[in-house]
Amino acid sequence: MAAMASLYLKNPAPLSHSFTKPTKTHFAPPLKLRLRHGPASKTRYPTRISASLINPDGGKLIELFVEKSEKDSKTEKALGLPKIKLSKTDLQWVHVLSEGWASPLKGFMRESEFLQTLHFNSLRLDNGSVVNMSVPIVLAIDDAQKGRVGSSTSVALVDDEDKVVAILSDIEIYKHNKEERIARTWGTTAPGLPYVEEAISCAGNWLIGGDLEVLEPIKYNDGLDHFRLSPAQLRNEFEKRNADAVFAFQLRNPVHNGHALLMTDTRRRLLEMGYKNPVLLLHPLGGYTKADDVPLIWRMRQHEKVLEDGVLDPETTVVSIFPSPMHYAGPTEVQWHAKARINAGANFYIVGRDPAGMSHPLEKRDLYDADHGKKVLSMAPGLERLNILPFKVDKHIHGLTTVMTFLLWF
Amino acid sequence: MAAMASLYLKNPAPLSHSFTKPTKTHFAPPLKLRLRHGPASKTRYPTRISASLINPDGGKLIELFVEKSEKDSKTEKALGLPKIKLSKTDLQWVHVLSEGWASPLKGFMRESEFLQTLHFNSLRLDNGSVVNMSVPIVLAIDDAQKGRVGSSTSVALVDDEDKVVAILSDIEIYKHNKEERIARTWGTTAPGLPYVEEAISCAGNWLIGGDLEVLEPIKYNDGLDHFRLSPAQLRNEFEKRNADAVFAFQLRNPVHNGHALLMTDTRRRLLEMGYKNPVLLLHPLGGYTKADDVPLIWRMRQHEKVLEDGVLDPETTVVSIFPSPMHYAGPTEVQWHAKARINAGANFYIVGRDPAGMSHPLEKRDLYDADHGKKVLSMAPGLERLNILPFKVDKHIHGLTTVMTFLLWF
Repeated sequence: MAAMASLYLKNPAPLSHSFTKPTKTHFAPPLKLRLRHGPASKTRYPTRISASLINPDGGKLIELFVEKSEKDSKTEKALGLPKIKLSKTDLQWVHVLSEGWASPLKGFMRESEFLQTLHFNSLRLDNGSVVNMSVPIVLAIDDAQKGRVGSSTSVALVDDEDKVVAILSDIEIYKHNKEERIARTWGTTAPGLPYVEEAISCAGNWLIGGDLEVLEPIKYNDGLDHFRLSPAQLRNEFEKRNADAVFAFQLRNPVHNGHALLMTDTRRRLLEMGYKNPVLLLHPLGGYTKADDVPLIWRMRQHEKVLEDGVLDPETTVVSIFPSPMHYAGPTEVQWHAKARINAGANFYIVGRDPAGMSHPLEKRDLYDADHGKKVLSMAPGLERLNILPFKVDKHIHGLTTVMTFLLWF
Repeated sequence: MAAMASLYLKNPAPLSHSFTKPTKTHFAPPLKLRLRHGPASKTRYPTRISASLINPDGGKLIELFVEKSEKDSKTEKALGLPKIKLSKTDLQWVHVLSEGWASPLKGFMRESEFLQTLHFNSLRLDNGSVVNMSVPIVLAIDDAQKGRVGSSTSVALVDDEDKVVAILSDIEIYKHNKEERIARTWGTTAPGLPYVEEAISCAGNWLIGGDLEVLEPIKYNDGLDHFRLSPAQLRNEFEKRNADAVFAFQLRNPVHNGHALLMTDTRRRLLEMGYKNPVLLLHPLGGYTKADDVPLIWRMRQHEKVLEDGVLDPETTVVSIFPSPMHYAGPTEVQWHAKARINAGANFYIVGRDPAGMSHPLEKRDLYDADHGKKVLSMAPGLERLNILPFKVDKHIHGLTTVMTFLLWF
């Protein structure tokens, strides 16, 4: 795996380059995957005039780590605060927040942000501008924990070994209406929603929001941490590679040949549109996934193999892990997946059939209309700057290549 | 009742007047109702420099009536079209749409509008601006009706006596996912939601959207039609009265003394803020309400009595009926109630505890947090121009005056 990291994280000297945007369409014309096409162009244009990736939401990437010089004093301070133990999923959200994937969010949501997320899938900033925010990023506590917090204005967040991970300051505690949260996020309250069962049903009846300060970067020590590039690191990588377009592909399943050909074809299309060096962010989701999804470690091996086989060009591909947990909330969640990638520098987002969808937990149908994800994405407030690239894979070919990929790997 | 209409719909010669907006706060400071206060000022300043009520959403009030000269030809055309029979509630929505309460909506929602309403409580217009739209205004049809529509691009909408009411053109038929609609609109799918039982559960599995042309104004012939002023008529009335601020009070229950004193007090506060002639739009909802709400005819009689008693000043009060059906969807619906009043010329909206709320159908609690309505209203996209006036009535006083009012009337 280390080989893969070094293979796909190139470090050429940073060069200034132009960032042209030849299309103003939010919703780029659909790409129809064709299995037969010419090889992608590998032409690169290393010298250009000015450098600029898409701006992060709110204008500035917000990282929430404490300064190194303050780490000892903050740790000391944390030891005197009421403690909140983080679940595995909570810790993944701390990771997400700390690196600025949810920029400009500065911590777990207070009620105002929670309500705006549930009702409008977006947040209005102080300057009147709007950023997308479709999935509540909240921390639940129970009555006993609330009692322990008492009148304290800050709390320490600790991991399962009671080690201090972060401080949450200027806190606000408000009611966790689970039914309403679930209904508005998933469009159903049917029992059996994986994230609900994992992280909501058993959670406390209060939410605690506040400003987050994380003592040090979250690591999982699973042999995959070197794939977990932060938005700042990814932006750095794209700048180094001299990218003038970044197209993101979110996935939570093994790559199949159809996917790989699609990504190659997308680069070709972007070159045709006038971009000089479109770079692919191949971005498997690394947080919580449901039990019957393929585990991350297997998926990363499979991605490595597909790349080694040369189906994707390592020169123009960055493979990294997106640390977010998975909600399986379809059209609501796909906005989060897209918004987070803007913060990592992507200005094109590839969206397929039924993104972030799953089967209805009770009924014999998909939970979401297969086309709603891309439609909602194209309409979403705060995502106007992102170019949406819908694609269709012929069902027969899709099935065939999926079968082929699975035959290769399982 | 006719006396009431003539009493409160004054027709002085229109005068130009200034429209000052001394505050830029979207969320005006809460009014605390005090039972003891001085009489409201009745000072009026009939001469001012320029006239301007708040603009309707989208810049122009959209009425959807056919031109008189075209009525016969449109009726003739309608007779040749596939027919959709309107339910009582459907007809109320035709009424709402026809008069421009939902401006700039031009008919029953197509899928794009439906999805934006469900996910974002707002619509993005072609010019990039955003208007609020929180409640789906949709027309459901069943499989048989869909079959009858076939490949026609227009349909005729008929009442329960098969009389043509309107034409829906350039139609789009799409799936009616009831579960998702209910979950995202109400934040629950619990059985027993009144509007769901009245208008959704038994409705068809398809929605039909399109451009609406209504043959003539909707009338109910219940002795109350003269109270049903359209947004255009209300705007005309406010202009005639030389209003420089219009504050709307939505209600679906009898007015009690606390309400009346609040409205008087609000006028006093607006005068203090620098407005010269704030006019109250006392605006009972007249569409579908649940069985245990007080019927419209009784409520109108009660409003009349309260006004005759001189608690509210007829010079500065317009009583009219808001034709919308009631969803009881709390924070989602209160946005609709506010947005519709912008279209009628109101730039201030009074919001109390738990607006459009009700008890949870299954659990012993209110369905919505009592404060969420006003919070969501203050954050809602497209309502930034509206000044929100939250109020609190002391519970004891509220209870007392409610009891008094009910003792007077029932």
